[in-house]
Parts: sequence; C-alpha cells; structure tokens
Amino acid sequence: MTEQPVSSPSGETDVENFADVVTLGEGNPLVLDSGEMLGAIEVAYKTWGRLNADKSNAILICHALTGDHYVCGTNPITGKGGWWENMVGPGKPVDTDRYYIICSNVLGSCAGTTGPASLNPITGKAYGPDFPVITLGDMVRAQALLLDHLGIDTLFSVIGGSMGGMQTLQWAAAYPDRVKTVVAIATTWRHSAQNIAFHEVGRQAIMADVNWAHGRYMDDPRAEPPHAGLAVARMAAHITYMSESGLTSRFGRNLQDRDKVAFGFDADFQIESYLRHQGISFVDRFDANSYLYITRAMDYYDLSAPYDGVLAEAFRETKTRFCVISFTSDWLYTTEESRHIVRSLNAVGARVSFANIDMDKGHDSFLLDCPEMNDMVAGFLQSEARSIGVNS
Amino acid sequence: MTEQPVSSPSGETDVENFADVVTLGEGNPLVLDSGEMLGAIEVAYKTWGRLNADKSNAILICHALTGDHYVCGTNPITGKGGWWENMVGPGKPVDTDRYYIICSNVLGSCAGTTGPASLNPITGKAYGPDFPVITLGDMVRAQALLLDHLGIDTLFSVIGGSMGGMQTLQWAAAYPDRVKTVVAIATTWRHSAQNIAFHEVGRQAIMADVNWAHGRYMDDPRAEPPHAGLAVARMAAHITYMSESGLTSRFGRNLQDRDKVAFGFDADFQIESYLRHQGISFVDRFDANSYLYITRAMDYYDLSAPYDGVLAEAFRETKTRFCVISFTSDWLYTTEESRHIVRSLNAVGARVSFANIDMDKGHDSFLLDCPEMNDMVAGFLQSEARSIGVNS
Repeated sequence: MTEQPVSSPSGETDVENFADVVTLGEGNPLVLDSGEMLGAIEVAYKTWGRLNADKSNAILICHALTGDHYVCGTNPITGKGGWWENMVGPGKPVDTDRYYIICSNVLGSCAGTTGPASLNPITGKAYGPDFPVITLGDMVRAQALLLDHLGIDTLFSVIGGSMGGMQTLQWAAAYPDRVKTVVAIATTWRHSAQNIAFHEVGRQAIMADVNWAHGRYMDDPRAEPPHAGLAVARMAAHITYMSESGLTSRFGRNLQDRDKVAFGFDADFQIESYLRHQGISFVDRFDANSYLYITRAMDYYDLSAPYDGVLAEAFRETKTRFCVISFTSDWLYTTEESRHIVRSLNAVGARVSFANIDMDKGHDSFLLDCPEMNDMVAGFLQSEARSIGVNS
Repeated sequence: MTEQPVSSPSGETDVENFADVVTLGEGNPLVLDSGEMLGAIEVAYKTWGRLNADKSNAILICHALTGDHYVCGTNPITGKGGWWENMVGPGKPVDTDRYYIICSNVLGSCAGTTGPASLNPITGKAYGPDFPVITLGDMVRAQALLLDHLGIDTLFSVIGGSMGGMQTLQWAAAYPDRVKTVVAIATTWRHSAQNIAFHEVGRQAIMADVNWAHGRYMDDPRAEPPHAGLAVARMAAHITYMSESGLTSRFGRNLQDRDKVAFGFDADFQIESYLRHQGISFVDRFDANSYLYITRAMDYYDLSAPYDGVLAEAFRETKTRFCVISFTSDWLYTTEESRHIVRSLNAVGARVSFANIDMDKGHDSFLLDCPEMNDMVAGFLQSEARSIGVNS
C-alpha cells in the first residue's frame, strides 16, 4: 500500500500526506535482544508535514500496545479517526504545520509491520509461534532503521504514552545522540509484578482458547482464530486502563435497558455491556499472537536491569530534555512511577519538566482530550524548538 | 456425610466436633429474590464448641466467594487446614472454648450445599444453567433456615470477610432481631462498577471455554469441565486480592529458576508461575457454574438499592453492634467503602467500632495472620459478650 503525497488546492500539503510499507534490513538482518536475527523486515509507517531543510523538525510518535501508525486522519482498518487526533494535527500540540511527524507500526504488531501474522519466508506460512520473542529495544531498533531509511539522523522529539512512553525512554537510553527531546506520558521504566500479572492473565486467556492451536491458527485458512480468548484478554486489560472512580461516575451500577436485574447471565449492568463490546470489537482489528508477543515485550522491559536496578545509570551523561506527564488516577503506571523516572533523571542532571495531571479517567487519560496535557506538550515543544533553533 | 461429636480423653469436646448435611425447606420451599422457588435444599455445615444453656453464645461464620464450611481443622476436600485457623479455634479470637460456632457452605456453592452442580430432582441431572440465579439475600435466608433447624433464634455474632462480610451486613439488615453483633471485615455494601467488571471478565473466561458447553458440562460424565476458563477467571480475580506493593515486595521482577529471561511464553517471572498455580489448583476444588452463580450474586448485592442509595436506611432502628475492619492496601473493597458503612451506621445511631489496619497484603489480609485484626475481633467479642451477658 503506497499513497502519494496529496496536495490541497491551495498548494499546501494535506495533513495525511504519506503512508508506506518499507522493507528494511535486507542483507543486514536485525539482531534481536534474544540473539536471534530477523532478515528483511517490513515497517508500515505514516508521515505528516514536511521535513525542513536542516532536517531538524522530525518528531517520532510511538504508539501503545494495540495502537498503529494511524495517529490522525482516517484509519483505513477501522474507518474511524486516528488514535491521537487530540494531540497531533494542524495547530494541535504536535503541530503538523510545524513539524515533520513520523509514526510506524511496532515490530511484532499486525498493522503492516512484520509480526507473528506475517509470512515466514522459510516456511511460506505465517510465523505464528516461530516468530522470535522481541523486546522494546528491538522495536526501537526497527524504528531507527526506518529513520536511517528516511535519512533522518536526529529527532527533535520522541513522543508517546503507555508502551509508547516506554519506547521514548528506550530511545533516549539507546540512542542518546539522536534524540533532542522526549515526551513520556503515562508510562513506566519497567513492568511491575502487577503489570506482568495482568498481562499473564491475558496471555493465558488466549492460550486457553482451543482455537489458538498452539499459535498455529493461521495455518488452516478455514480455522477460526482465538477470538474468544483474545476478547477476554482485552476485557481484563481494559479494566486496568480506567480508574475505579471513572468507572463509577460513568457506569456505576446502572442497568442496561432495564429497570431491574434480569436474574441471568446476560449483560445486566452497563459496565458489562461496555466491556463485552470492548472485547468483541477488538478481535476484528488485532491478532492474538501479536498480543502475546507485544505483552511479552512489555513485561521484559526494564531500563534499569543492566544497572542493578539503578535507573539513573541508563541516562548518565544524557543531553536529551525530558517532559514527563502522569495522571493522578492512573493505577496501571502510577504517578509514583513517573516520579521515580523524574528523580532518576534529576540524579544525572538531566533537564526534566514534570506534570501530574488531576484527571479521573485512569491510564487512558493520555488518549483523551485533556487540555492540561495538550498545553504541557505544546509548551514544552515550543520552548525546546525555540531553544534548539528548530525552523518550521 | 455425618460425623458424630468426638470427645477427647479428657472429656472435653474436640474442636472439630460436628459436620453434617441437612435437608431444609421440605414442603416449604425457599422463595428466592428472583421470585423462583427452590424446594428441599441441602445445607452442608460444621459446628465447633458447645451451645450454652440459654443459647446465647452462637456465632455464625460466613465464608467468602470460594470458601466453604471448613473454617478450622482439616478440610477433607483439600487435605489442608481450614481457611480461618488464625481467627477461629481454642483460645483464638473467635474462641471455640467459649462460643458455639457454626459455618455453612453458601447456597449456590459446591462443597455440599445445593448449587448448580447438585442434582435437579425434576431432570435427574445436575441443575447446571437451570439453577435459579441467587442473591446474597437468598444465601442468608438459607442460613436462617439452618439456624431454625438448630433451634437457635438469636446469634451472638455474625462474622465474615469479603463476601462473608456482605452476608454479615445482610444478616443485620434482614434479621435485625436475630443478630446481637456483626463483625464485617474487608467488605462493602454494594459491588462497584470495577468489582462487577472483574467478575464479568471471569465469567466471560469460563463461558468462552468450549468445555463449558452452555453450562451443561456435567450432563456427559466423560466430558471435560471448563478448567482452562475457570483457571483464567481465578487468576484475574487473584490479582485483585493482592496489593501492588505486596506483589512487588513478594515477587517483584524476580525470575523463575533462571538468571535471565527465556525469550518464550513459559513462566519466566515468579509472579507468572504463582498465578498459574493459583489457577490450576483452584479448578480441582471448585465448580465453574458455582463460580458464575456466586459472582453474579455478589454483583447483584446492593444493600442501599431499596432505599434510593441511602445505605443508612437499611439499618434504621438497628440494635446490632458493629465492628468494621478494613485494610489500607485493599483496593478491591477499599477503606473508603468501609468508612461509608461506618458513617451510614453512625447516621442511624448504631454502635460501631472501626479499624483501618495498615497492612500491605491487600484484600486477602483478612485471611492472613494479622495480630491487629485478631486483637480487634477478640476485644470486640469479649467486650460485647460481657455487656450482653453471654455465658461460655
């Protein structure tokens, strides 16, 4: 799928101006953290805006667990708007009129970049369980290959929330010279025992589905994928994306189209109906094996592990400037975890802006329209662009 | 199964002195909250200690979601000790040397009391999905029938944690003249949207298991029960029983028998292995349909519903004295929820003792050895027994 840049009648470039799938690493395979190698990989990506003459205005957006590269504009898979339209677009905090914005689908995912649903060139079938286990480090390596391909050496900013935020920190740690600024939202530097536990429940739900077939459900084109298990995994995860108070204010114990309980196992409560919808609609757009591989990558993520748990050491001598944002009601990646990141950065003299935003929508706050977050990101980018001397 | 009271050589009654299954409601069926009726029901129960002459020393212990009537002594189903041996026994806070203690398996469960795994007298097969949906009110009605059968009009105390705590409050609201005191631990007066959400994930996991067979997995004795789905349900629930900090201090990111991750989907982390064990060991002792029915009953529970959400009205003119205990790290039924119960009781002039115990083990703290909880319960019972004039 290749779209050519579209020019509007006024001669300005349309916001959605480029989407492509590029083959990278041919003849020079990606060496993964596991030690395995992935030969030529495909990376699906989109760009918005124009790269300026000195290539100083490039911003990489990193998506979350179930996201993709359709940040804004229409997502051709879902037919809906992009996942971060509040944040990215003309005149938005990440302003497509000023910056050249790139987002690629992560390695292991299923929206165009190589993952377990891709064809294994050795067998001619989908990789399935033969896909190598990947890490956040590997995802970022694939992004770096894409930037090489695009001829971009240095990023003005790497921006992301949740797993996207993990990638921003990974970028700063792995490629300190290529990242001027980082915006890390609603994220953590390592998955906690509770984070791992919730992911393990999701993986077990998928693997308990007989249709999973030990990961080989794609071998028989007539076979059903493990939709029931994947839906349960999504439901369990979705609870962690919302706060208790947010659920109470939005759903409480409100009943579904009834004035009394039905004394049965259909969805009596609105929260049940909502969760079931989240599960059912998810399976149409996401691959069960990708869910296994990406949750595994997140569980393996621990930036402090090579330094005996001392996170600050991952950023020693960093020159990157950081903006860290947490939400008071986020119990998945808590304010305390963001504070630990900030303290660790302070310990090595890094420049950090930090905001803990009072919003009751839980972890998913970063995806919602949050004026305080928007103002913080817009202000940080404007100030750093001025300081660094980035031309639009 | 009937055991006769056992006398020790000293002539004193053994702690485990009576277990029985009794048939109740013959000719006078139990009318359920749903409007349906259950004819003769079986209720499995155990007693410890001796009922005194004026029958004033009877205590009813109420068990939690997956509990049973084996409070202390050896559980013949698991071969392990009872679930509340820290709390109940000779010289323990609920002292079997002083009180006559009763615990019955709740209606809908699977340890001897009538539930979906019991034979439906109409079909000659297990009820399965034909079992009527029950409520906490129905569970307590069945307990009241048992007390009638035992000739006990008034309980000195009703004591329980979690769903057991919900039953204690239900007792005080439904039978105010039969309950002198209540000890409600780590509990709530209504299931919140988040509580319902977690239970719905568990139910969906069970119902997604093809072996569930629309609840009729017992019809074919050669069929496998839905163990995989039930294990996932248990794993998801188990996370809610522990605190984030408790998980971190107990497991953190510790690896399982390895010094590095295995880059695969086996249990790499100790928390994964622990959770899997919780799931696998649960299915040997619990029936999947019972799990559906009891979680449904908990979700339906809302003591304030008949009073437009004003909980205090459920206890208007109560003479029962209450002891309410919460744990700082319990995020399933939070301290704030216990405070709401206390404030509501205060609003109608009820006598309430309240303690919020600083313990980092989460919801399951009530099942663990917690000296502060033990002291609080022991002190409350001793003081109230003196005040009321209960003879040992």
